[in-house]
Amino acid sequence: MRLKNVKGADKKIEECSLVIKNPEVYRGKYKEIFDNNNPIHLEIGMGKGNFIINMAKTFKDINFIGVEMYDSVMVRAVEKLEDNISNLRFIKIDAVNIEEIFNKEIDVLYLNFSDPWPKSRHEDRRLTSLRFLKRYDNIFRKEKTIIQKTDNRHFFEYSLKSLTDYNYKILEISLDLHKDDVFNVETEYEKKFSDKGYPIYMAKVIK
Amino acid sequence: MRLKNVKGADKKIEECSLVIKNPEVYRGKYKEIFDNNNPIHLEIGMGKGNFIINMAKTFKDINFIGVEMYDSVMVRAVEKLEDNISNLRFIKIDAVNIEEIFNKEIDVLYLNFSDPWPKSRHEDRRLTSLRFLKRYDNIFRKEKTIIQKTDNRHFFEYSLKSLTDYNYKILEISLDLHKDDVFNVETEYEKKFSDKGYPIYMAKVIK
Repeated sequence: MRLKNVKGADKKIEECSLVIKNPEVYRGKYKEIFDNNNPIHLEIGMGKGNFIINMAKTFKDINFIGVEMYDSVMVRAVEKLEDNISNLRFIKIDAVNIEEIFNKEIDVLYLNFSDPWPKSRHEDRRLTSLRFLKRYDNIFRKEKTIIQKTDNRHFFEYSLKSLTDYNYKILEISLDLHKDDVFNVETEYEKKFSDKGYPIYMAKVIK
Repeated sequence: MRLKNVKGADKKIEECSLVIKNPEVYRGKYKEIFDNNNPIHLEIGMGKGNFIINMAKTFKDINFIGVEMYDSVMVRAVEKLEDNISNLRFIKIDAVNIEEIFNKEIDVLYLNFSDPWPKSRHEDRRLTSLRFLKRYDNIFRKEKTIIQKTDNRHFFEYSLKSLTDYNYKILEISLDLHKDDVFNVETEYEKKFSDKGYPIYMAKVIK
């Protein structure tokens, strides 16, 4: 995602009550924040928040946490919040540190239009690389479910190899999601891309 | 594949020296036919034979067997044979009986543009259904490698689920094969289809 500096972003994020400021404190006890035992779904790289905000509004019995590392992007999600959404929180961290934030408490992980990092030497930065899959092992509560969407064919091909190599099974898959008659909450990026007629790839994998 | 009755097809097939007439006799000892220990690659549903004939001409150190159930289709492959190709044989059987023909001797299985059998009640007829995957277990020599190509998106999605559910790992995958710079021998059907600009899907899986 191309980044522009957004004036006052840090202040807006600081003031938003849905942003968890000291997330490492809640490691292993995020259910306390939500004050219930509902499943917790996590989106890494939530971007401008369209997906996670709409998911939270739609599924009241699921708790949603959106993670994003850039102030200038996260502030767009913060600005979108109208009322308080009790089953939604944001965290501003780099995903490489995800294990310091969560401990065996995530039920579903969403990876939406993640940076494909096409160069081989950047493979470890891809959110479906072996290095990341190992990190996720420690944040999942029990059954590990990852739902990925992307428009990037080579990144999707890579992800399918990486995920199945790490013993994830493919539970659902679409190689042209917007042509299928299924429930789907779009991200900002997805809308722009699919409007041009390109296929959106989706896989739901489980381990 | 739409079938036309071809006059004299049975006679032509009968007279072709590369067609194995009593394949069950060779069960477990196909290497005797080829008189060497080279790996054996099998194509189920070889259609008009373009793929397997060209593969056999290209890879002299691999033995190829093409299986087809219809006289009217197989005769087109027979007619294509110019000279004797020592590393190629054809067998006319229905793939449901594959275990009666082979026993722990196949190294690679090709499934090219197989009938997708889209209706749920026909799932067992799909060549990547659990029922078929179980049959293949007994024909593979050791490591099980399946290479699938298809233009049918839903069939490919189904196959990826079915294969990974049965513990196959994805070794290679392309969601638009003809846009990738890779070695590829086309089938008759594939050429017609890709010329129209539709994507060809390919997966190489291993267990």
